[in-house]
Amino acid sequence: MAPIDRVLNFADQSLPRGMDRLFEFLRFPSVGTDPQHHGDCLMAAKWLVADLTSMGFSANLRPTTGHPLVFGQFLPPGAGPATPHVVFYGHYDVQPADPLDLWDSPPFSPQIRASKPGRNSIFARGASDDKGQVMTFLEACRAVLAATGSLPFRLTVMIEGDEEGDNSHLDRFLKTNRQELRADIAFVCDTELWNDVTPGINIMLRGCICEEVTIRGPRVDLHSGDFGGAAINPIRALSRILADMHGGDGQVAIPGFYDGVREPPPEIRKDWAKLRFPIKHFLGDVGLALPAGEKAFTGLEQLWARPTAEINGIYGGYRGIGAKTVIPAAATAKLSFRLVGGQNPKKVRKAFRNFVTARLPADCRASFITQAGDSRGITVSSTSQWVAMARKSLTAEWGRAPVLVGNGASIPVVESFKKNLGIDSLMVGFARVDDGQHSPNEKYDVDCFHKGIRSWARIISEFA
Amino acid sequence: MAPIDRVLNFADQSLPRGMDRLFEFLRFPSVGTDPQHHGDCLMAAKWLVADLTSMGFSANLRPTTGHPLVFGQFLPPGAGPATPHVVFYGHYDVQPADPLDLWDSPPFSPQIRASKPGRNSIFARGASDDKGQVMTFLEACRAVLAATGSLPFRLTVMIEGDEEGDNSHLDRFLKTNRQELRADIAFVCDTELWNDVTPGINIMLRGCICEEVTIRGPRVDLHSGDFGGAAINPIRALSRILADMHGGDGQVAIPGFYDGVREPPPEIRKDWAKLRFPIKHFLGDVGLALPAGEKAFTGLEQLWARPTAEINGIYGGYRGIGAKTVIPAAATAKLSFRLVGGQNPKKVRKAFRNFVTARLPADCRASFITQAGDSRGITVSSTSQWVAMARKSLTAEWGRAPVLVGNGASIPVVESFKKNLGIDSLMVGFARVDDGQHSPNEKYDVDCFHKGIRSWARIISEFA
Repeated sequence: MAPIDRVLNFADQSLPRGMDRLFEFLRFPSVGTDPQHHGDCLMAAKWLVADLTSMGFSANLRPTTGHPLVFGQFLPPGAGPATPHVVFYGHYDVQPADPLDLWDSPPFSPQIRASKPGRNSIFARGASDDKGQVMTFLEACRAVLAATGSLPFRLTVMIEGDEEGDNSHLDRFLKTNRQELRADIAFVCDTELWNDVTPGINIMLRGCICEEVTIRGPRVDLHSGDFGGAAINPIRALSRILADMHGGDGQVAIPGFYDGVREPPPEIRKDWAKLRFPIKHFLGDVGLALPAGEKAFTGLEQLWARPTAEINGIYGGYRGIGAKTVIPAAATAKLSFRLVGGQNPKKVRKAFRNFVTARLPADCRASFITQAGDSRGITVSSTSQWVAMARKSLTAEWGRAPVLVGNGASIPVVESFKKNLGIDSLMVGFARVDDGQHSPNEKYDVDCFHKGIRSWARIISEFA
Repeated sequence: MAPIDRVLNFADQSLPRGMDRLFEFLRFPSVGTDPQHHGDCLMAAKWLVADLTSMGFSANLRPTTGHPLVFGQFLPPGAGPATPHVVFYGHYDVQPADPLDLWDSPPFSPQIRASKPGRNSIFARGASDDKGQVMTFLEACRAVLAATGSLPFRLTVMIEGDEEGDNSHLDRFLKTNRQELRADIAFVCDTELWNDVTPGINIMLRGCICEEVTIRGPRVDLHSGDFGGAAINPIRALSRILADMHGGDGQVAIPGFYDGVREPPPEIRKDWAKLRFPIKHFLGDVGLALPAGEKAFTGLEQLWARPTAEINGIYGGYRGIGAKTVIPAAATAKLSFRLVGGQNPKKVRKAFRNFVTARLPADCRASFITQAGDSRGITVSSTSQWVAMARKSLTAEWGRAPVLVGNGASIPVVESFKKNLGIDSLMVGFARVDDGQHSPNEKYDVDCFHKGIRSWARIISEFA
């Protein structure tokens, strides 16, 4: 029997015991944001430490500025400086379970029942987000260790307790411990399948910078009868600047905005086109019908692979009931720019500010506020060895090649890994879109758990 | 002695008694908006009725939905249907006097003292706005009646008590009594001299309409990461529409907006150019430097004679502290349009709505709210007999031709006269810009009072 077959065989045979372990893990009501459950969080974390230890990991709890971090290390016998180092990431905290009356079974008493004909699911808070997903990886490690006696790389498992809360705790931990954590790749198991039968690998996340601009004109609000016509109106000036920010084809017209932007490779665009992403349905859900972005790109490309300039808020002048005929002294807009890999947040901010300043009419002044933290867009190479290994393994397991997907928003931990450790993340997950993450009756399908374990087992075994 | 000389001689001789009468009138603390002073308002009104009666008027108080209206009529002996009918307008209510500690003498104990070397002024609340001005006209009537035994026209004096409060009371009165009030012209004495030594006749007032527009896109606020790029942003759509509202030369780019607009006649523009209106000083006072309106017109023309489109307020999306990366469901702008004579408010409103609707991107909808009451721009003929008479009389009295001025804002009663009675107003007043109307230490200069009486006496006598 080939080693991979022995590994998969072990995984299949031990599935009932893996389910028992997942159920134990799910019984901790580890709601990270609720102080009443902080003890439960600690219990869940300690349970993980024990589980890792039972597999031969050197594991403990590491303090952070938030909940303790489950930290487990496996050093293969004979490993040297050339041995690859993989970091695995997941989280043990879960969303609050309320409203409790909408649950068909108690959220922290996991139960298997059919979610639709022929599909058995594990119902519990955290089943899909993220305890079930975490356990696919740990059970895969257990199978590989049992079947081969070791892992083909050095592995650091980090399972945090603040994913649903404050992202800064883990970020701070990574920053403080960057020497110790020097690694080659992070495995992140917190994403979805592309559809019921097709796996996905996330290769793009957009970054984000936020800006606030205030245009000032007259020293005070003016009477629009006495001054109207001769006095500059800051709302008019701001509207003009904001309107100029987009060209007729939907592109952002700020000079330099696209510097460094790499279009997705033709083969990715071709793959995405084949996906037949139901953009009309996606937009229809929120009352819209047509993609409103760059005409040269499909709706899916606009969402996943293209940077944007959005006005998140605007205010100026009179905003109460009825009319007040003033020319206001100032007008303010809040903006966010979604960035893709290759764009430099600092340069985009500067380009925006230059754009505004160049368009200021006489008698107007602009001031800017930088909001929140900048994050860069992240594009993982679609041709890296990690993606290649995952692609091969997922294709073998699911019988279909995984879709290389993007995500218009950011996943904070991926940015943290990139920023602090300089490493990419391999984002593979087995949740389904109907899992009800953050909702009542959250579930994780038994076949996802099983095939998730087998998928990770194949990926790990690819190293050997 | 020519009749006019007898009239002016009487006016000069009776000035001390005229001052006494003005002082009596000023002693009533007729603050119309303060219920504690409603009795004082009634006393002031009754005093006026008595004064008019003493001159031979048939005078009484007429009820309105607000303070009673002083209503006096003089029918010249032998008057017939062809006898011209003049309506005179003024107001007996005054602004509140506070802050009292900033007054150098009690606001309702009128006092004469020098306001600058060589200039004696009457200090009291209402001295300039509008009791002193009202009395210039009544004293002129008294002089003409004393010297000639009659007036050369049928005269209705209306002195209201709600000018500083709710304009709708008089408007309602005029509407209800339009048959009785059929007249040829209204004399309004509530405006300023052009400068210390030059009288002014107001021939232009801008009207105003107010609109509110809301642009709606997505059904709810969207996550700008998940939807940014493909979802239309209503603030962006609104900014584009508002930006398009003005062309590069400062003109309003709404098709049909200028329909019916008559440019001021060349001789008026020439006169205005000669005024050397200190636009830089005017704008400098509010922190601006350059006229921002239509480049084809001077700053003064932009203020007095040209219609405008102003954005009075705007709001949409997130407006709190910090950043929130949403694509908002809606954005709203409040606008006012200052109109000049010839523009039809209804048509301008329709043109604006069409302009918005034509520019709505796919997936956006617009809704409109009509705010407040529409008012038309008013342009009084600069070549009418009334203006000609006033011009001749004022030139004779002041030794300088009056300036035909405009006013960027509206004077509600003038619109009410036009709307309800279909008559123009002859707007002549003798207040000075430093009179401190609405402020502590309000004053009316003795020479303004004296020359004001003589000016009206000349204008009235011109009819004979």
